[in-house]
Amino acid sequence: MEKVAIIGIGQVPVREYWDKSLRELGARALLNALEDAGRDQIDGLYVGNMMSGTLSEQEHLGALIADYAGFTGVESLKVEAACASGAAAFRQAVLAVASGQKQCVAAVGVEKLTEFSGRRASDALAEAADADFETSLGLTFVALNALVMQRFLYERKVNRDDFALFPMLAHRNAVHNPNAMFHHEITFDQYKKAKMIAEPINLLDSSPIADGAAAVIIVPAKAVNASNKRIVDVLASALATDSIALHDRPELLRLKAVEQSVKRALDSAGITLRDLSLFELHDAFSIMSILSLEASGIMSAEEALQKIKEGYFDISGSLPIATMGGLKGRGHPVGATGIYQIVEAVTQLRGQAPEPIQVAHPKYAMTQNIGGTGATVVTTILKGQN
Amino acid sequence: MEKVAIIGIGQVPVREYWDKSLRELGARALLNALEDAGRDQIDGLYVGNMMSGTLSEQEHLGALIADYAGFTGVESLKVEAACASGAAAFRQAVLAVASGQKQCVAAVGVEKLTEFSGRRASDALAEAADADFETSLGLTFVALNALVMQRFLYERKVNRDDFALFPMLAHRNAVHNPNAMFHHEITFDQYKKAKMIAEPINLLDSSPIADGAAAVIIVPAKAVNASNKRIVDVLASALATDSIALHDRPELLRLKAVEQSVKRALDSAGITLRDLSLFELHDAFSIMSILSLEASGIMSAEEALQKIKEGYFDISGSLPIATMGGLKGRGHPVGATGIYQIVEAVTQLRGQAPEPIQVAHPKYAMTQNIGGTGATVVTTILKGQN
Repeated sequence: MEKVAIIGIGQVPVREYWDKSLRELGARALLNALEDAGRDQIDGLYVGNMMSGTLSEQEHLGALIADYAGFTGVESLKVEAACASGAAAFRQAVLAVASGQKQCVAAVGVEKLTEFSGRRASDALAEAADADFETSLGLTFVALNALVMQRFLYERKVNRDDFALFPMLAHRNAVHNPNAMFHHEITFDQYKKAKMIAEPINLLDSSPIADGAAAVIIVPAKAVNASNKRIVDVLASALATDSIALHDRPELLRLKAVEQSVKRALDSAGITLRDLSLFELHDAFSIMSILSLEASGIMSAEEALQKIKEGYFDISGSLPIATMGGLKGRGHPVGATGIYQIVEAVTQLRGQAPEPIQVAHPKYAMTQNIGGTGATVVTTILKGQN
Repeated sequence: MEKVAIIGIGQVPVREYWDKSLRELGARALLNALEDAGRDQIDGLYVGNMMSGTLSEQEHLGALIADYAGFTGVESLKVEAACASGAAAFRQAVLAVASGQKQCVAAVGVEKLTEFSGRRASDALAEAADADFETSLGLTFVALNALVMQRFLYERKVNRDDFALFPMLAHRNAVHNPNAMFHHEITFDQYKKAKMIAEPINLLDSSPIADGAAAVIIVPAKAVNASNKRIVDVLASALATDSIALHDRPELLRLKAVEQSVKRALDSAGITLRDLSLFELHDAFSIMSILSLEASGIMSAEEALQKIKEGYFDISGSLPIATMGGLKGRGHPVGATGIYQIVEAVTQLRGQAPEPIQVAHPKYAMTQNIGGTGATVVTTILKGQN
């Protein structure tokens, strides 16, 4: 397999865009990434998106965004894997270059949600779950995660209040990320008073729906100058699935697709977890943060709830997470999230993060994008030139 | 790039399935293909589908079908490119094997439409077009094709009645395909009396919506015994796009994405159009048949309307088309259609088609799957062992 590298990144700030369409957001992120890469052509475009059909009555985003961005004719298609659509599109872009068929491709993640807030967006998000055996019974996506958290609190001996530290950390970092949705910290007191959404998940345990688009430009590694400090190598991109319905899993708290995708990614990259300088995890809900740390093999969920108190996951800690705000602070424009994570990891590896949230001398970064309640997981390992 | 081969094909008959879900149809086609291949494992699954979110309130088909078919854990995702979703998923499966990362993958196309007949299915299909500048004005998908046909009749000197010969040919072949939706011939008289849908397109110019699923199993060519007559080599798979909206095209009758994808496919395969033994074209509407013959470089649309009278496109003709019934006779389960075309071409290349529709000694087959009004086109070239 041909080795591949990321030579450009682009994004639009995560916001509510009531005046911009899917194509405008997607094309803007793509053109920003091309400008960053110093390129003006691509020969492939892979668009990650989950809900454009259901919400915006628009499918065919591959041709739509290629056309609008000025690349009419180019090979392009949409990839969907629920909330993991972004990283799944990235994975397809990597394979296209790795196969030797493509020389310069873009992976773009894009989603518009906020104009459909309330019931409609909630129903669309639930399409990530099992329509016949979960959603049809009235389960929303947050309710499914609440079942998992309920079980966690039943099985494990932890202090419920410690969950607060994950969204607090995410918001603390998001303050410094100009592309994040939220630029305010949250206090423990605010967390304690937050409205209950689906017990035991409260409002501040939940990442917000958002609009956004992010893009990366990928080329064969041999086509770039290795001494260019802005180049980031893609050491691994691994996708694994699990049963889509929670009730089909023998162990509700075990994210097997996380285990598998991390194992495949580490094997492929030839590194260990100890080598990681940062980990952009999928903190759609705070319960997902700790379960993904556990399933990734980093530490048990109980330990994570302790270690976060000691600053283990802070920017200056042993393994910084959600360095640019994570899903909770940056926002979760579903099909775009996986690409935002990669864009942020590249920013860190280049040393281009705003000073208070720049990880010191990062070498290896891992990102993890989770679809559904863990039914699709894509883990990516990147290496900077420092 | 690693060469790849198709070692198994599977399908469910194209029908109205009111009692079977997306996952049942998809898994059945997949398991049929594995049985045909003599395999019981895959390491990748690429699902082509367009409308599951909008119609069945179910996204995340990658994990859903992998799980239901008994391959929980395997890498899997959904690919969407409107009516070309099937062949686009096939293309991703080919790239995954070509990259050297996968050893045995499946491409599955699946769609359920008939339980949503009428306005709802029509609206969902229109998501292939430009939501902001076409669909929002009330244009349906058949109306867009009617605009193209209207323009064709204005620009070109042809006999309107000659269009009848394309659906008549398709139905004639479909009679012998047990997996086709329609098993009756249609007469010129029936065509003349057919209800007008969107002038000048009548009911028998239009392929029917349908439910269905089809699958192929793909492996590295070097992993199979070249003397096995059932193996079919994938010589090329090429995807090109065009502007999504009709009004953005300088020439309404020119399918530029067809031109590009055929050129790329022939170059990659190292053959010419003269080498083709059969062509499974995308006869969603009869106007699309003749325009794709023209844009593919086979002959002008006017010539096609003449040559069909001489039997040029019959099973025993110079270039058989729609050999198993095409979209018109087999039916058009949108996201599955591209895979049905490939399954049918493989059936022909193996010499396994029912006798009256078996092309004599076929060597090279071309399939073409068109999304939208030509905004995404995937052309595939296959070679049998005969």
